[in-house]
Amino acid sequence: MAKIIDPWGSELPESYEKIVKDFGLEIFDPKLFPQPNRLMRRRVVFAGRDLKHIATCMKEKKKFYVLSGIMPSAERLHFGNKMVVENVAYFQEHGAKTYMLVADLEAQATRGISLAEARKRALEFHIPAYLALGLNPKKTLFYFQSENKTVMHLGYQFSKRITLNEFTSIYGSADPGRLFAALTQVGDILFPQVQEEPMPGIIPVGIDQDPHIRLARDIVWRTKQSHKLFSPASIYHKYAPSLDGSLKMSKSKPESCIELPEDMKAVKRKILRALSGGRDTLEEHRKLGAVIERDMCFELLKQHLIEDDKELQEIYYAYTSGKMTSGEIKQITIEKMEQFMNKLEQGIAKARKRVDDLQFVKFGE
Amino acid sequence: MAKIIDPWGSELPESYEKIVKDFGLEIFDPKLFPQPNRLMRRRVVFAGRDLKHIATCMKEKKKFYVLSGIMPSAERLHFGNKMVVENVAYFQEHGAKTYMLVADLEAQATRGISLAEARKRALEFHIPAYLALGLNPKKTLFYFQSENKTVMHLGYQFSKRITLNEFTSIYGSADPGRLFAALTQVGDILFPQVQEEPMPGIIPVGIDQDPHIRLARDIVWRTKQSHKLFSPASIYHKYAPSLDGSLKMSKSKPESCIELPEDMKAVKRKILRALSGGRDTLEEHRKLGAVIERDMCFELLKQHLIEDDKELQEIYYAYTSGKMTSGEIKQITIEKMEQFMNKLEQGIAKARKRVDDLQFVKFGE
Repeated sequence: MAKIIDPWGSELPESYEKIVKDFGLEIFDPKLFPQPNRLMRRRVVFAGRDLKHIATCMKEKKKFYVLSGIMPSAERLHFGNKMVVENVAYFQEHGAKTYMLVADLEAQATRGISLAEARKRALEFHIPAYLALGLNPKKTLFYFQSENKTVMHLGYQFSKRITLNEFTSIYGSADPGRLFAALTQVGDILFPQVQEEPMPGIIPVGIDQDPHIRLARDIVWRTKQSHKLFSPASIYHKYAPSLDGSLKMSKSKPESCIELPEDMKAVKRKILRALSGGRDTLEEHRKLGAVIERDMCFELLKQHLIEDDKELQEIYYAYTSGKMTSGEIKQITIEKMEQFMNKLEQGIAKARKRVDDLQFVKFGE
Repeated sequence: MAKIIDPWGSELPESYEKIVKDFGLEIFDPKLFPQPNRLMRRRVVFAGRDLKHIATCMKEKKKFYVLSGIMPSAERLHFGNKMVVENVAYFQEHGAKTYMLVADLEAQATRGISLAEARKRALEFHIPAYLALGLNPKKTLFYFQSENKTVMHLGYQFSKRITLNEFTSIYGSADPGRLFAALTQVGDILFPQVQEEPMPGIIPVGIDQDPHIRLARDIVWRTKQSHKLFSPASIYHKYAPSLDGSLKMSKSKPESCIELPEDMKAVKRKILRALSGGRDTLEEHRKLGAVIERDMCFELLKQHLIEDDKELQEIYYAYTSGKMTSGEIKQITIEKMEQFMNKLEQGIAKARKRVDDLQFVKFGE
């Protein structure tokens, strides 16, 4: 790979630096992994735990797993889901056994969706969307949380290994619903090791999911006599930034949030209104160039819409030098987004026809 | 039935009166139920909740259920288990659908017994012992907690319906293990209504199990929109008193505790040393009669060893009038206990051959 200048900065914004420090994370170094994916190369993936352990597994072709979950309540996905899928797909392509669970119990308890409805939604939308985003169905083992007795048993067993204070110190609070959900998730995280054999595993998550990782790691430590499991490694991506420039895209601000998939008419409107790095006047812009750090279209291009580093780099130079205007970058973003949305919708439609071929974990009865 | 004087007192000891008042229980009235069993007639059963509701079901032959559980960790049973079985058998004989669960998840989490070992113990000992104590295998549906996904799902769902404060106010504390166990037990208590249809049910328990009943009743109230279940009724028996006269027989004081089954040599020794109602001298005893309230042998005869009310009454009169000595009542107790233990051991051996014919709840997969 040609040496490229790193136009998007390897410095972490202050808020992420604080997270890394507070939670004792390792800062992610893309050189650690072979053929790092777009998110890794561009430091959207910014931190992790036990990453060297996983790098060794990849290098030495040792058995390891990657696991993530699908929450089948949401009607659409968001860019956070996309990043998780891309990281899962990365490890999948680099030899990880891949587990993907459907959190139907959590959807039922927190959203009042019946297990039957959760299953229907997962099969009709979420799983096909995950495949469309890059998950390889031939290399993925799926399961529904509600059918996985081992996971439920693990949650129950683990409940005896932590105190309320420990739980509260990780999660900030400890209402019973949160406790059940969290301990069941720890059951999910460690399930492949119980189902197959103890082995390293990596869990790609948004940083807000780190409490589950910490709880899982604490529980591995506390059950080392009885279970002898490996502590799960983890890898963290940044939030997809809100189109208004704030830290996190959120459905609570629909005009600053793009869902997956979403109708392009709305998406276009949102992109045109997004926070821009363009200067107040064209003259000033030509002279000073864009303030690229605050340009949400460039963020979208960088994080999601342009795969080729050189292409991105050219836009970076053109925009920061003032050759490209914010109107032009918005047009590019709209075009790329339209291609992406079309591809996603076609991909979902196509994957929907393949759900009968999915591989599910087989539970001995 | 001939009118009998109530020699064993319908007054509750102070400690039980306080319980009834503190927890808002109904005082049990044996006239409420048809053909009350020994424990009911003799006020060993002393309180309940929603008992009239259950009485109506019996009278009008409406569908209702009785449920209890087996903890497959203990190596032997105790008199508390015997009382539960007798009350379950009572409702079973009076038309209740009967569910008996094996709390293997709880045994695993709290005692470190594997699910396989818990199953083995339940089938080899606990279930045969329950049958020997009077449970009718033809009318009982068994299940293992670990195999009952519905119960685990209910526990998860219910966790969202209570707060930590509410849980703490019922249980005194709220460590995660207790939370999981308690919510799973509530799942057990309500399971027959989810498996079949909403219907009244009664749970015979020792008074120390009342928190689970209260939690179950609270949860029924909080899920009335989504689940429409009946609040479980309950019926409480007193503790088997310790042979030293204190409130509760406990394995922590082995010389004051008789296990089921237990070798008669040890049992004889314990009975001979048990707290007696005899007076200091024979002369005094003949003159004043026994202080029967403090006689633990009479308690054993009354609660467990003499079925016939008239026979018990005769002993009562002979002993309180001073005609019968404490040595004599101990001999009677030893004889009756020996008959009981022999019958129990034979019953267990016989029931062990019938475990293949047990009926288990069928779970649709």
